[in-house]
Amino acid sequence: MGFKRKLRESVERNNSLLCIGLDPDPEKLPAGVTVAQFNRAIIDATSDLVCAYKPNLAFYESRGIEGMRALEETVAAVPSGIPIIGDAKRGDIGNTARHYAQALFDVFRFDAATLSPYLGFDSIEPFITYADKCAFLLCRTSNPSAKDFQDLFIQGQPLYEVVAVKAREWNVRGNIGLVVGATYPRELARIRQLCPAMCLLIPGVGTQGGDVAAVVKQGTDASGVNAIINVSRAVLYASAGSDFAEAARLSALKLRDEINTHRCPA
Amino acid sequence: MGFKRKLRESVERNNSLLCIGLDPDPEKLPAGVTVAQFNRAIIDATSDLVCAYKPNLAFYESRGIEGMRALEETVAAVPSGIPIIGDAKRGDIGNTARHYAQALFDVFRFDAATLSPYLGFDSIEPFITYADKCAFLLCRTSNPSAKDFQDLFIQGQPLYEVVAVKAREWNVRGNIGLVVGATYPRELARIRQLCPAMCLLIPGVGTQGGDVAAVVKQGTDASGVNAIINVSRAVLYASAGSDFAEAARLSALKLRDEINTHRCPA
Repeated sequence: MGFKRKLRESVERNNSLLCIGLDPDPEKLPAGVTVAQFNRAIIDATSDLVCAYKPNLAFYESRGIEGMRALEETVAAVPSGIPIIGDAKRGDIGNTARHYAQALFDVFRFDAATLSPYLGFDSIEPFITYADKCAFLLCRTSNPSAKDFQDLFIQGQPLYEVVAVKAREWNVRGNIGLVVGATYPRELARIRQLCPAMCLLIPGVGTQGGDVAAVVKQGTDASGVNAIINVSRAVLYASAGSDFAEAARLSALKLRDEINTHRCPA
Repeated sequence: MGFKRKLRESVERNNSLLCIGLDPDPEKLPAGVTVAQFNRAIIDATSDLVCAYKPNLAFYESRGIEGMRALEETVAAVPSGIPIIGDAKRGDIGNTARHYAQALFDVFRFDAATLSPYLGFDSIEPFITYADKCAFLLCRTSNPSAKDFQDLFIQGQPLYEVVAVKAREWNVRGNIGLVVGATYPRELARIRQLCPAMCLLIPGVGTQGGDVAAVVKQGTDASGVNAIINVSRAVLYASAGSDFAEAARLSALKLRDEINTHRCPA
């Protein structure tokens, strides 16, 4: 099943726009629990509450081959009806990007991936030729230094808006989305205005401080969907003890419901 | 030994600015030769001719865990005096970038890595805190679509120049370099002018069509060094037969010498 349909169905089934970022930090895992065990417990405790999962590859690559194996096990642990977004932020010249697309879509079997736009269209194209997958382009990111380049003005328009407009133009197959940080609601509103029908992946709620009400209001489309609101640390580390999975479930439930109170139409 | 000293010594020892990109494309390897065998043969045939090696991670990730193992074997096959640049083009928010830095510098033990600048300083910082390593920021890339964003003007200056100026500003530890495509000699000249002392990593000679004379003239510093000129396909696939390693050596020797005829002082 393609990403779009899978997402639509999981949003409806679980009545949720919440995505959980599976970013297991070795320093924060409960004692004696492996990465794969931790992720499986989180997934088992939350798979009826989320619209998607988003593992960030950095947290696996930093543990070498053992980490990549844990990533494989994590992907296998996600129920087949829930889309998995490989948060990889890749970007390379066309010939090389083809290999990254193979790695993310054929080898790791992600339903979607995040990409950096800096190299332009030929770095994106090998990903969008996978019609059933989705490529989320970094647009306005959630980190403090996002402003260094993304906010610079080009003929009266900040770079992140230029990226949004280009993404819209390139989206002939309907399988491009944008990554927009929850920590910048004004920018989020502007991007939603420029791309009214595009799927937005919105990290930065929770530990990074993004405001749920503003994110839902500015990030969802006219039907109250097409926004994937990602939370990582606030769910994963809701408890540092052996009750981490139950605590994660409670945190996810609270976030899902809080998001839903702001959705329109409810 | 730190990257800078390692590079300086290998440039002198092998009288070379040539870097070989270890990007083994499964479709182009001679029959019956594994990735690790191929790379080891290329390295054994060229290690007295290069200043560095640069594996691009995409070509390993596309083969999954087996590919990552081949990457480990490749790193181990490079003689210890030659620096290895992990061409990964990573870029993520600070907390995550720390994990990518660990992956590239601690796990894979690269001497340097390539990074995307799109997320700004806090995505670069975790890399440059490794004082003995080097972080090469994408500036003006070699691909045709580089122009989509990198050439856009910000207050009279193209984005890639703004990146170059920022990189110079951030380079307080002297361990930031820039990636500049050989296919754009005018842009290369401008970047060298803005950053007279910075180490430039210059891919795009060979299959991509960059002109050696122009690259050496515009890319090297006043002492004829601080430019790492990368060639991948033109060396790796100089022959498709069982003589691939000898053919790679001949191609590398020719390129090294051609580069040296244009170096100044000779």
